[in-house]
Amino acid sequence: MNKNYYAVLMAGGVGSRFWPVSTLSNPKQFHDMLGTGKTLIQKTFDRLNKFVPTENILILTNEQYNDLVLEQLPMVKQDQVVLEPAMRNTAPCILYASLKIQKMNPDAVMIVAPSDHWIEDEAAFEKDVTTCFSKCEEENALCTLGIQPTFPNTGFGYIEFEKGSDAQLKKVSQFREKPDYETAKEFLAQGNFLWNAGIFMWSVETIVEAFKKYQPGQYELFGQGISCYNTGDERAFIQENYAKAENISIDYAILEQSKSIYTLPATFDWNDLGTWGALYDKLEKDKNENAVVNAQTLLEDAKGNMIRSPKGKVVVVDGLEDYIIVDKEEVLLIYPKDKQQDIKKVLTQVKEKFGDQFA
Amino acid sequence: MNKNYYAVLMAGGVGSRFWPVSTLSNPKQFHDMLGTGKTLIQKTFDRLNKFVPTENILILTNEQYNDLVLEQLPMVKQDQVVLEPAMRNTAPCILYASLKIQKMNPDAVMIVAPSDHWIEDEAAFEKDVTTCFSKCEEENALCTLGIQPTFPNTGFGYIEFEKGSDAQLKKVSQFREKPDYETAKEFLAQGNFLWNAGIFMWSVETIVEAFKKYQPGQYELFGQGISCYNTGDERAFIQENYAKAENISIDYAILEQSKSIYTLPATFDWNDLGTWGALYDKLEKDKNENAVVNAQTLLEDAKGNMIRSPKGKVVVVDGLEDYIIVDKEEVLLIYPKDKQQDIKKVLTQVKEKFGDQFA
Repeated sequence: MNKNYYAVLMAGGVGSRFWPVSTLSNPKQFHDMLGTGKTLIQKTFDRLNKFVPTENILILTNEQYNDLVLEQLPMVKQDQVVLEPAMRNTAPCILYASLKIQKMNPDAVMIVAPSDHWIEDEAAFEKDVTTCFSKCEEENALCTLGIQPTFPNTGFGYIEFEKGSDAQLKKVSQFREKPDYETAKEFLAQGNFLWNAGIFMWSVETIVEAFKKYQPGQYELFGQGISCYNTGDERAFIQENYAKAENISIDYAILEQSKSIYTLPATFDWNDLGTWGALYDKLEKDKNENAVVNAQTLLEDAKGNMIRSPKGKVVVVDGLEDYIIVDKEEVLLIYPKDKQQDIKKVLTQVKEKFGDQFA
Repeated sequence: MNKNYYAVLMAGGVGSRFWPVSTLSNPKQFHDMLGTGKTLIQKTFDRLNKFVPTENILILTNEQYNDLVLEQLPMVKQDQVVLEPAMRNTAPCILYASLKIQKMNPDAVMIVAPSDHWIEDEAAFEKDVTTCFSKCEEENALCTLGIQPTFPNTGFGYIEFEKGSDAQLKKVSQFREKPDYETAKEFLAQGNFLWNAGIFMWSVETIVEAFKKYQPGQYELFGQGISCYNTGDERAFIQENYAKAENISIDYAILEQSKSIYTLPATFDWNDLGTWGALYDKLEKDKNENAVVNAQTLLEDAKGNMIRSPKGKVVVVDGLEDYIIVDKEEVLLIYPKDKQQDIKKVLTQVKEKFGDQFA
């Protein structure tokens, strides 16, 4: 494996639309959402570990998930778990991780990727990422994988690339925020728009230079810690300074500023597993289009349901169509699939009415 | 309290229509079905213990429920738990218990009552039972409490009494098996039909004489054990002989034969809690007619549901009407209320498909 290849797994999110399985104390990425025997972060790690050396994979997460990470990824050393003492969006933690990697290996190229998405075709994923890595090794490029849209989804940001080039990697003209439905339809009609899946690749040299140029304040803050990174002094420095960082996304801080952004239309199938419905789409169905995870079911007059329970629980359903039925130890949710976007609101109500322990 | 008063609680049933809460290993009578903090057998025991001395209450049950009885009724001694080594319907165990009581106290009058019914008005219950007890002390009468029918229920047997008497206790003309709907309507129109709730009262002398007369074979079998009853030899005798008894109900063996049966129309409200719907009827409802036991609920667009969960579980339901939603550790049931009679069939399917451990 190429010793210059590094990866940063983003594993600090909460995935509240997957409540009640995903909770603040045990979010989505640490669950076996697909019933495959592996959690999402384990699957993501394995996918990267095919071409990125184990010790070169860093996990970016909150302090409260440190134990979960070490438990689920026993091959990872504590040094590889980069803890954010405060929530400051993606830019500060990516800069911090990039500086750590640069100190380990100034020739590093790295991928930043979410830990909770679905990508089945690992070979295609590796091919696409290493194609971008080569580009990043050759020039000062910031690369992103773009997903070919299958419908006018209003829940994602879009990447607009310059038309007319035959190159595999397309020059990005601009990033577009989540559009309304009409705009999304237009994007698809134009043909040069991809979904932004939050998967980025660059050399450490390029990204650090980009921060220097576009976010000098952030660079100054985290640059002061360079002598501490990867030593016993790192933790104290980060505890003292991290929270001072501006709360800003990498998209807004860097990608929308830089002129040398490229996107590679992904050759693999992708799903953000952002909702129960998205998960339902990726699961195998029975003859009545019911998707079942973990449960032993007896279904009568039941169609199009997404059913999940603790392993081996017997679930008997009669007369339900298009419902999300999620059972866990302390919570049972029976909810229409077409109202899944409201699960965040349900979660807020549950917290207010019954307390944070259920959230 | 009157030292001659005795009670026999029937606690060997399984209540399979209350699956998945009621199971073979932990049937209905041992559950707090109403969410009151007491199980049904505890409530039944307390109701009788208002006028029957603690040590005069026997619990008739299967060997596998012995520990449950002692756990839930800590005031009961092992001697008071009468164990049936085999299922032989009600006549053999009632004769056996009656002979034990007669040996303790030949002047005893006793009540035989199910342990899993709902009776809220304990004072009225006591008054009705002691009225019957007085009758039984005066003459050789077999008494039963009859429930005033509120609708043409086809799930109960009926007691037909002789019209035209002003006496409180009515002479029974005959017992009628579960009728079809038209017959049940006719019963109600005639006015001299009551539901048979399986609550019987008699003196031990009268019931034992009745067995001698109408079931001489049974009397002979259990009569051989008289010297053993209430001694260390009882268990061996019962283990050897109980299974030889004919499988026959007390109704068929005695009540339908005897000429001196009386019924007292009960002055209390009664419910057999035979189905989830019957339980639903007896529970408090929220403003949308949902009945909730144990759960903390967040209900939206949910009406007329019967919801039960482990204590304190958060249950979120959106868009369901007239469902039975029962959640327990290893089973979740979501079932239309109007199909509740099919829960026995569901139970059979679950056993076939997933094994007896869920039944």
